[in-house]
Amino acid sequence: MKSGNYSRRSFLKKTAVGTAAAVSFPGILSAAAPKGKIKEITLSKGQTILFQGDSITDAGRDKNDQGFNTAGNLGEGYSLLAGASMLNKYADLSLKIFNRGISGNKVYQLAGRWDADCLELKPDVLSILIGVNDFWHKIDGHYDGTLEIYKNDYTALIERTLKALPNVKLIICEPFAVNGIKSVTDKWFPDFYGYQKASKEISDKFKATFIPYQRIFDEARKKAPGDYWTGDGVHPTLAGAQLMAKAWLKAIK
Amino acid sequence: MKSGNYSRRSFLKKTAVGTAAAVSFPGILSAAAPKGKIKEITLSKGQTILFQGDSITDAGRDKNDQGFNTAGNLGEGYSLLAGASMLNKYADLSLKIFNRGISGNKVYQLAGRWDADCLELKPDVLSILIGVNDFWHKIDGHYDGTLEIYKNDYTALIERTLKALPNVKLIICEPFAVNGIKSVTDKWFPDFYGYQKASKEISDKFKATFIPYQRIFDEARKKAPGDYWTGDGVHPTLAGAQLMAKAWLKAIK
Repeated sequence: MKSGNYSRRSFLKKTAVGTAAAVSFPGILSAAAPKGKIKEITLSKGQTILFQGDSITDAGRDKNDQGFNTAGNLGEGYSLLAGASMLNKYADLSLKIFNRGISGNKVYQLAGRWDADCLELKPDVLSILIGVNDFWHKIDGHYDGTLEIYKNDYTALIERTLKALPNVKLIICEPFAVNGIKSVTDKWFPDFYGYQKASKEISDKFKATFIPYQRIFDEARKKAPGDYWTGDGVHPTLAGAQLMAKAWLKAIK
Repeated sequence: MKSGNYSRRSFLKKTAVGTAAAVSFPGILSAAAPKGKIKEITLSKGQTILFQGDSITDAGRDKNDQGFNTAGNLGEGYSLLAGASMLNKYADLSLKIFNRGISGNKVYQLAGRWDADCLELKPDVLSILIGVNDFWHKIDGHYDGTLEIYKNDYTALIERTLKALPNVKLIICEPFAVNGIKSVTDKWFPDFYGYQKASKEISDKFKATFIPYQRIFDEARKKAPGDYWTGDGVHPTLAGAQLMAKAWLKAIK
């Protein structure tokens, strides 16, 4: 996570750069997400909500704490912030909120731990954010999976989930990247759009609720520069984590 | 911090107990806080917001991180949750949000570190939550300060602050306790009310914005039992921290 420590002066400087950058990289528009009303999920008493994904979901959670509903086991990212909001707003529902994101994960690694880290928890609502590493680790030369593998593995994972938990409500979060910030460069595009599009197609195929994170970050850049929302183009700052939580919460009625 | 790990069954059991407890301890009503519109503060570009207090404010923050705006330096309590919300909502304001709460602090301990941990940071908005230890450590036999000392020390601290920072906007948070939960028993009352009343009087004297936390926790007990909101009667759970953050944010326009 990036520190937010910059002076007002450097902030203003960065704002100017950020604005310029937003103009220079018009290509970053959500490949997948039309504007429109989000498909909402109604929570019921005693339900379990599970956040799954990679480092963005993990967000430094205590892996020795296999519990739920605490800052220790929810980490310090969007799962914590969305979780805290739900625990307060729906206090009468006795929700159990779990985070099982693990840094660095790609789809096949979710699949490898899916019994213990998803199916056995029997979530009523399952939120998944996965894909940026499936692409990033490939262009970095640390992984040889393709877009086709991402799409097929992800589809198989959802089919396996629905076989075990036919009534689970799915939330598919679009993988996102903020171009011009540290790790994310023009080299990512247009190939990364394919992963975003795949996530939307999978969401549509299984009638999931889709969180269009790329559009959400793109729109946030109009308010503050990209590095206000993410330190490296991939991992959100605290401001970015709250941006994500707020967008996610729109899925919950 | 208390773990939120209890089954739905035990939650329902606790709900019943909680309801009974709320009836058994009707005495816990905010001694200080009439209902009514909160005095709002308007934030401006480049402003610094400082959270000060004891363990409830500290909330496990990384003391080696003297920065701002990150989960590491804001901890995992209401300061983090309120901070994340402001950083997102007021992204165009380039705020700097600091937490300098320290576990176990009483007013005289704030005074001892006030130059470095408040005045030198030059906050535009200063939020203080202090008082529960001034009382708790006294009845536990670890401190011999009186209500008079609390009130005089607190008044002197605010006077000193306003002398150095005449334009600072003050937020005084009412110390609170959830009766019937672990550390908080009938033994606390009515004496603890004196500390709450003093905090309100100081807030009024200096025209601060007052956050009536006792009433907020009392009202929350109608939705879920006391131990849903606090593990020991004093320290909030994640649900309680979000309850606090939401109430605090009402002070910000």
